[in-house]
Amino acid sequence: MIYFNCDYNEGAHPSILHMLEETNMEQTVGYGLDPYCERARELILEQCHAPEAEVHFLVGGTQTNTTAISSVLRPHQGVICPDSGHIQVHETGAIEACGHRVIPVPSKAGKISGEQIEEVWRGHWEDEVHEHMVQPKMVYISYPTEYGTLYSLNELEEISSVCRRCGLILYLDGARLGYGLCAKGNTLSLPDLARLCDIFYIGGTKQGALFGEALVIANPLLREDFRYLIKQKGGMLAKGRLLGIQFVALFQDRVYFEIARHANEMADKIREACVRLGFSFLFETTTNQIFPIFTKDQIKKLEKEFNLSFWEKVDEERSAMRICTSWASTEEMVDILIEALEQL
Amino acid sequence: MIYFNCDYNEGAHPSILHMLEETNMEQTVGYGLDPYCERARELILEQCHAPEAEVHFLVGGTQTNTTAISSVLRPHQGVICPDSGHIQVHETGAIEACGHRVIPVPSKAGKISGEQIEEVWRGHWEDEVHEHMVQPKMVYISYPTEYGTLYSLNELEEISSVCRRCGLILYLDGARLGYGLCAKGNTLSLPDLARLCDIFYIGGTKQGALFGEALVIANPLLREDFRYLIKQKGGMLAKGRLLGIQFVALFQDRVYFEIARHANEMADKIREACVRLGFSFLFETTTNQIFPIFTKDQIKKLEKEFNLSFWEKVDEERSAMRICTSWASTEEMVDILIEALEQL
Amino acid sequence: MIYFNCDYNEGAHPSILHMLEETNMEQTVGYGLDPYCERARELILEQCHAPEAEVHFLVGGTQTNTTAISSVLRPHQGVICPDSGHIQVHETGAIEACGHRVIPVPSKAGKISGEQIEEVWRGHWEDEVHEHMVQPKMVYISYPTEYGTLYSLNELEEISSVCRRCGLILYLDGARLGYGLCAKGNTLSLPDLARLCDIFYIGGTKQGALFGEALVIANPLLREDFRYLIKQKGGMLAKGRLLGIQFVALFQDRVYFEIARHANEMADKIREACVRLGFSFLFETTTNQIFPIFTKDQIKKLEKEFNLSFWEKVDEERSAMRICTSWASTEEMVDILIEALEQL
Amino acid sequence: MIYFNCDYNEGAHPSILHMLEETNMEQTVGYGLDPYCERARELILEQCHAPEAEVHFLVGGTQTNTTAISSVLRPHQGVICPDSGHIQVHETGAIEACGHRVIPVPSKAGKISGEQIEEVWRGHWEDEVHEHMVQPKMVYISYPTEYGTLYSLNELEEISSVCRRCGLILYLDGARLGYGLCAKGNTLSLPDLARLCDIFYIGGTKQGALFGEALVIANPLLREDFRYLIKQKGGMLAKGRLLGIQFVALFQDRVYFEIARHANEMADKIREACVRLGFSFLFETTTNQIFPIFTKDQIKKLEKEFNLSFWEKVDEERSAMRICTSWASTEEMVDILIEALEQL
Repeated sequence: MIYFNCDYNEGAHPSILHMLEETNMEQTVGYGLDPYCERARELILEQCHAPEAEVHFLVGGTQTNTTAISSVLRPHQGVICPDSGHIQVHETGAIEACGHRVIPVPSKAGKISGEQIEEVWRGHWEDEVHEHMVQPKMVYISYPTEYGTLYSLNELEEISSVCRRCGLILYLDGARLGYGLCAKGNTLSLPDLARLCDIFYIGGTKQGALFGEALVIANPLLREDFRYLIKQKGGMLAKGRLLGIQFVALFQDRVYFEIARHANEMADKIREACVRLGFSFLFETTTNQIFPIFTKDQIKKLEKEFNLSFWEKVDEERSAMRICTSWASTEEMVDILIEALEQL
Repeated sequence: MIYFNCDYNEGAHPSILHMLEETNMEQTVGYGLDPYCERARELILEQCHAPEAEVHFLVGGTQTNTTAISSVLRPHQGVICPDSGHIQVHETGAIEACGHRVIPVPSKAGKISGEQIEEVWRGHWEDEVHEHMVQPKMVYISYPTEYGTLYSLNELEEISSVCRRCGLILYLDGARLGYGLCAKGNTLSLPDLARLCDIFYIGGTKQGALFGEALVIANPLLREDFRYLIKQKGGMLAKGRLLGIQFVALFQDRVYFEIARHANEMADKIREACVRLGFSFLFETTTNQIFPIFTKDQIKKLEKEFNLSFWEKVDEERSAMRICTSWASTEEMVDILIEALEQL
Repeated sequence: MIYFNCDYNEGAHPSILHMLEETNMEQTVGYGLDPYCERARELILEQCHAPEAEVHFLVGGTQTNTTAISSVLRPHQGVICPDSGHIQVHETGAIEACGHRVIPVPSKAGKISGEQIEEVWRGHWEDEVHEHMVQPKMVYISYPTEYGTLYSLNELEEISSVCRRCGLILYLDGARLGYGLCAKGNTLSLPDLARLCDIFYIGGTKQGALFGEALVIANPLLREDFRYLIKQKGGMLAKGRLLGIQFVALFQDRVYFEIARHANEMADKIREACVRLGFSFLFETTTNQIFPIFTKDQIKKLEKEFNLSFWEKVDEERSAMRICTSWASTEEMVDILIEALEQL
Repeated sequence: MIYFNCDYNEGAHPSILHMLEETNMEQTVGYGLDPYCERARELILEQCHAPEAEVHFLVGGTQTNTTAISSVLRPHQGVICPDSGHIQVHETGAIEACGHRVIPVPSKAGKISGEQIEEVWRGHWEDEVHEHMVQPKMVYISYPTEYGTLYSLNELEEISSVCRRCGLILYLDGARLGYGLCAKGNTLSLPDLARLCDIFYIGGTKQGALFGEALVIANPLLREDFRYLIKQKGGMLAKGRLLGIQFVALFQDRVYFEIARHANEMADKIREACVRLGFSFLFETTTNQIFPIFTKDQIKKLEKEFNLSFWEKVDEERSAMRICTSWASTEEMVDILIEALEQL
């Protein structure tokens, strides 16, 4: 059985394990104040061209989202989110559990526009009794989106400018950031994110780390006391250096981007095979996630050999599956899958 | 500089790193449903003699406490806790952030008694307007306590019986559980905990794991939907097997207890040296934490070579320091420390 | 200027003021344990044919909804609600502030069906990773709805039976209950509500009281410790008898239903005039709320003399307004309005 | 049976009922935006000499405390409070339910000092790992205290100056404010409160209103979006004018202070009788609450005729009772009580 269902089926990229081992017996202080976290922060800020920004390391995505959002919103404020956004769909109401409404907006292939955001914002303030309603104060988007799609630089600039005009905080979930930044057709860079977003995170878990996310707080107004929030929400590892070490490993020789490029290439091979074989897609993507549409029979056959991710029923006969590659997807695995696709 | 300030200065016990590496390229499902988590659950339940109990793996202590407590309390209910308890002192109000009051009770060397618990409970119900007050519904204790001290089997049985009589849920924080179970004078066993507590956790982070805690829900009434809570509170690792693997490594050859015994022996050596040299202690302990009292000058000298943990001012001239050993404390390190103590 | 914008423009029905005055100097115990609250409970339970149910009095609607919902849900659970429901639209995220997601379902004229509820429930449980999502555990509906429309007995029975089959708690917001129960075409009774719902409330604020809502907990499993929740959420009046007195005044001679009938009759007169004059309606209603559609010019003219409630733009030229009657709407006021409508 | 157990046994001061009746049929807008609320705001601000401050009306004390505190604290922040404070003792964990810890400080007769506050604050910031602990950010005190005692102007100035130096928000609960401001020995005025506190409230419920509290936000930094919070926490009455009307009635002819003076005089008479008869007191007070100490037998006798409030056991034989007067306590009632005391 070969797994293509997600990008976190294996352990960690070897360079990470290697560094964990190498440093294992060193003694350092805890809670993210060690030299490895310091070094990882420097590397990230350099690559973001944002020497003044603040970087914090957290364990996982839900935790990072919860911590960031609850740090900046007041009790009556909510966060605008594509209806496909992770905090809306797959975090068991973690944001609401911290007291805030997620305000879903209809998305197109996982994306929303600046115009949609402005409309929600204006709708709130135009209402005479706006204080009877949740006040939109933050915007959550993902890059790439949960459907593997990408915002263009223009689109992100528009969103950012709407947010600034409306006093909305822009937060970008980069759980799979590298796959986006290294994808064909990508027009964004880390410095763009640091310039256009108030807060964003660079995901490790889904991109070669054992676990871990690096949160960048670009807006200085949002930094106060952030470490308290990390501790309260359970994100402050006693052995905090584990996060620092992993991000040093990922960022010192640009391993993070190599991983992404490799995974994207593997996805491209599968994508091209699908096109060649006449399969259509639920979403057009250039990242490490592909959403080909198969018939029930085809799925049944594939599932004998492969663990894919069921995504969505398309009609009575057909469904979209998610195929996902990662640093650990080998040419060999991909060739076996393509062969199987050819024999459907 | 040698660190004796805590038990999480290094990475992980070699057996853990070894197993992480060995399994690194295996593909498994995520979120704690993999075979390693399964195996770790079996091992733990066997050693608890509690085949019917449920085991969940979480990342850290604050998260485990928050998840367990918020899973079982209703909004008007609070948790009784020694005034030295971790949730009262060192978790940035994580329990309150989930809506519940921590009700502190004066502790003796980190411990409270069944009698004290019953008094709080009775005080609540005897008040005519009890519904104007937080209802005590849970008891939180630690073993060993935050001060390294131990409850006897008799004491825990009394606490447990008070809790059952009063309808209070008994929760035991075992962040350093092994050090307690392997200490001189310990009278408790894992099966005792499974029998006497409703919920307890077996700590990994402070006992040789990179991170991770194993929560045992002994009381079947408290199990429903627990995985939702783990996800919501950020404790559900995508690569959940990392937790399973670590607990297999710790429990399959009783490494967990070896680690504890080793650390306790190293602490014993230091403790005996302190006694021999005439230092007194803030608390009498037999676990891996020692709290000797030094003068300002002595502390100054020690701090040139050693990273100890400042605990508490005793008088104008003297303070208690915490010295903490772990799996990673070598005889050599301990000897250097003893030598330094001798030269004070 | 005559107000028809809502049903809470005046003070209280004279019988209430009268009774408040009459009892003013009596001394009673506080917090809802006085003889007036007792008597009001009896009257309500009699009229519900539910001698075993529990009645609590709270101050306002948002508070009642928040208290009831947070009393029965666990942290990972949410409440299904028509997208037009009050808790979704007009309570400033009060439910989320208690930690729970409101799960909106597209409504037709304010109503949802048993089928829609079942679909949400089934969608949750059929998903493989349901624990990554908010668990639907409660259903919130209003009678009459926020748009003045009514569920039939059949529809409510279907909803109730879906809820019981799916283990969902059924909660009915009766902020304007009397107007519904006394409307033309109504097929429901108080005993039906007590039989089909787990919890519901009988609204006072919008039906002649100064303020106050009577919450009926029909399901005995949901009663435990409810008074703690009332206190915590700010709903326990020191002078609790004020609520008891008002509900005695409303229920002892069926004043509550007289008020509703009068308001509905006044609405009928206006409605019939609108029909006669050729105005169309945004929703078809038989209760005290009417939603006629006017042109911009017509609205401008009306607003010189009347305070109506802007509801919704229908097209570039026309908008729906809400006209609302109450116990305090006189024939004279209604005639003046009709005359104005005739002159548009 | 005559009630002296509290100051909310009767309805409202006649001037309030009178004004409610007089205005009953007027039509006004809702939610606190009506002319009566406007007028009440003006009256209060005039008497506070604080034309720039903001006044909001809420229904009850727990609600006011919860709304004010949750409006200004971030999730990791807590509120310092005398251990006898209402939010600590008698609000069913309402503050914790909004996510914040109440940090109790040992009180003397209900009071704490600036020095104690500074010590808690310094203790937090001096700790190396302060981010592992709840950050004290607000101070809650009551005037008069829950034990009927008073801060002097000097004491309040010291507290205020500590708060400003330490960046702590000073919040004063004035549930019984008038009794304090009109007591013998009082050295404070409304303008002092507006000058020294960031937020405080003027209680109506316990001082002649049916219900209602007037919250004064003196610090302009704390005003933003406060009406959202009122709505969310259930404090925004649909018929908001009921609050405005009551505070106009209380403040237009200084009825509020007359009520207080009368109640204090009645208390003085009882107090003097107790002194004369040789009873001692649990606390020395000059406000409307008296805490004489009686033997079991004496209490038994008194309870045949009077409803007093049991306060606290003093020793095996004796307990303190609370005797409380109000606007509604007549000379006659007081004489009967004194007679009974004489016959004990």
